[in-house]
Amino acid sequence: MRADILALLRSMGEGYVSGEEIASRLGISRTAVWKHIQELREAGYEIESRSRNGYRLMGSPDRLLPAEIERHLQTEILGRHIVYSESTQSTNEDAKKLAAAGAADGTVVVTEFQGDGHGRLARGWFSPYGKGALFSVILRPQFALPQEAPKFTLLAAVAVVKAMKSCGVEAGIKWPNDVLIDGKKSTGILTEMSAAMECINYIVIGIGVNVNTDAADFPEEVRKKATSMKLAAGHSIDRARFVGELLNILERLLHQAQREGFAPILDAWRRDSITLGQDVRVIGMNEAVDATFEGRAVDIDAYGALLVDTPQGQRRVLAGDVSIRPQKKA
Amino acid sequence: MRADILALLRSMGEGYVSGEEIASRLGISRTAVWKHIQELREAGYEIESRSRNGYRLMGSPDRLLPAEIERHLQTEILGRHIVYSESTQSTNEDAKKLAAAGAADGTVVVTEFQGDGHGRLARGWFSPYGKGALFSVILRPQFALPQEAPKFTLLAAVAVVKAMKSCGVEAGIKWPNDVLIDGKKSTGILTEMSAAMECINYIVIGIGVNVNTDAADFPEEVRKKATSMKLAAGHSIDRARFVGELLNILERLLHQAQREGFAPILDAWRRDSITLGQDVRVIGMNEAVDATFEGRAVDIDAYGALLVDTPQGQRRVLAGDVSIRPQKKA
Repeated sequence: MRADILALLRSMGEGYVSGEEIASRLGISRTAVWKHIQELREAGYEIESRSRNGYRLMGSPDRLLPAEIERHLQTEILGRHIVYSESTQSTNEDAKKLAAAGAADGTVVVTEFQGDGHGRLARGWFSPYGKGALFSVILRPQFALPQEAPKFTLLAAVAVVKAMKSCGVEAGIKWPNDVLIDGKKSTGILTEMSAAMECINYIVIGIGVNVNTDAADFPEEVRKKATSMKLAAGHSIDRARFVGELLNILERLLHQAQREGFAPILDAWRRDSITLGQDVRVIGMNEAVDATFEGRAVDIDAYGALLVDTPQGQRRVLAGDVSIRPQKKA
Repeated sequence: MRADILALLRSMGEGYVSGEEIASRLGISRTAVWKHIQELREAGYEIESRSRNGYRLMGSPDRLLPAEIERHLQTEILGRHIVYSESTQSTNEDAKKLAAAGAADGTVVVTEFQGDGHGRLARGWFSPYGKGALFSVILRPQFALPQEAPKFTLLAAVAVVKAMKSCGVEAGIKWPNDVLIDGKKSTGILTEMSAAMECINYIVIGIGVNVNTDAADFPEEVRKKATSMKLAAGHSIDRARFVGELLNILERLLHQAQREGFAPILDAWRRDSITLGQDVRVIGMNEAVDATFEGRAVDIDAYGALLVDTPQGQRRVLAGDVSIRPQKKA
């Protein structure tokens, strides 16, 4: 109902709408209208009321409220159920619990602040209150093998780059899913799954984007390595619009993968990649990759693994830290 | 305390032990001893009491009670915490919930009856009350990639074959983890995991073995295809001893894999396999394998995938149904 009142206020633009009209259009009492307006105000909406004209929306809060995101959605599934909280420990942990309890495909968990956000390889991920786009999406892909899960994480990186582009910010992908702006880290993506050997029960894709983070928000030691969309664009970004657009793109890519397989997604990843063609240093994180080695990143394979040419032959990297080595001078 | 009293009674063999001695050895009151004895009797233990001699253990219930399994354990981790219930919907579902809530590495969930047991590919799995070995083990492997999870499921099949052998029952493995006795299905193994792209949070290995199932217990339509250890051995098997021995073997193999990698486990799998060297028909279950094809199963690779030689070249099977075709006559 609150979303309906908001939509009605928005449809009036600069104009007013009377409490009586709201009540009659939505089939509720004028007292109910008044209560909802009060609640919207408490949630941060600026709503002017004039005794003869009625109500007018003056401003929306800079929050990732479901109604704010939903305005921008063109999806069928993604974001059709949004769970919002002002702060939480980790949206991925929340989403995993919801998924285990049966939450629908496409459910989104979003917050303004994470107390215990984390990224790949159990690294911490910090974003100041109300400046990031911090959310997790629950996906229930059919006929997908656990071995295919890394492709979903590459897909998410492609979606982030496209959504940034729609806001005028150019970005590139460092394998597997670091989204860099001007060579600096802007985004963390953590994909988790519950799976049997032959099917994925559910995937949770957690995405944390530095949207309106200011330089002063970054801890001293990461300031040289991290940036935000705002810092790149030179102005604040509408966070709710960005999240909505990102969900739209994610769903479009997921539909494409379902229809045509992941090949076109992997091609899009290759186009956005800043890793391919570069000399890299790989630090193996587990037994599948032994220790550290260097070589040239030449491609990704059909499973999303990075292929690195080394003097000892081509190596396939499924997990690990890949840093791009400074270009040698000719 | 009940386990201590049981151990004391067992240590006496055919002899009696007085309530006074039990009380003094365990540092509890004689009333407490009496209460524990009553509880043990309610749990199904036959305990004789003679006014002058004391107590004597005459018989243990045919149940997979923690104390019964623990007697046979030589493990450090596996089965050191056992969650028992007379019946449950699914031990895998229970174990996944416990694991998500932080249950320790090696925790075992065991039951006499599953209301909603299921096997690979979401197929039903039925075992009559009190005749199977139905349990799930929670593992928290370190430094393991999700792509390596199938190897744990092959390891589990190897362990089941070894544990059956220790009971005098010969079995073989049909790829990936069907354990067959006399060519008939005896065991279901369902491995599930929670993972990020670069690490496994936890693995749950669910094992259901037809131990003392009688021919009449099998539904008519599966009688030709299913069997039990009892049917093969010609006598009942001590279920608690079998589960304890299976956990001992599982832990031994897991330690070996940790020390030496999975190569020796995969070799053991190859030795026990009845699929390799056979003409097979593969029914692909998802996009990674297209449709149905036939060929000769020649090996498994380092990730546990089945390698099948076909006229069109070698194919790698990660998931699907593999049936062995009848031998052609020479």
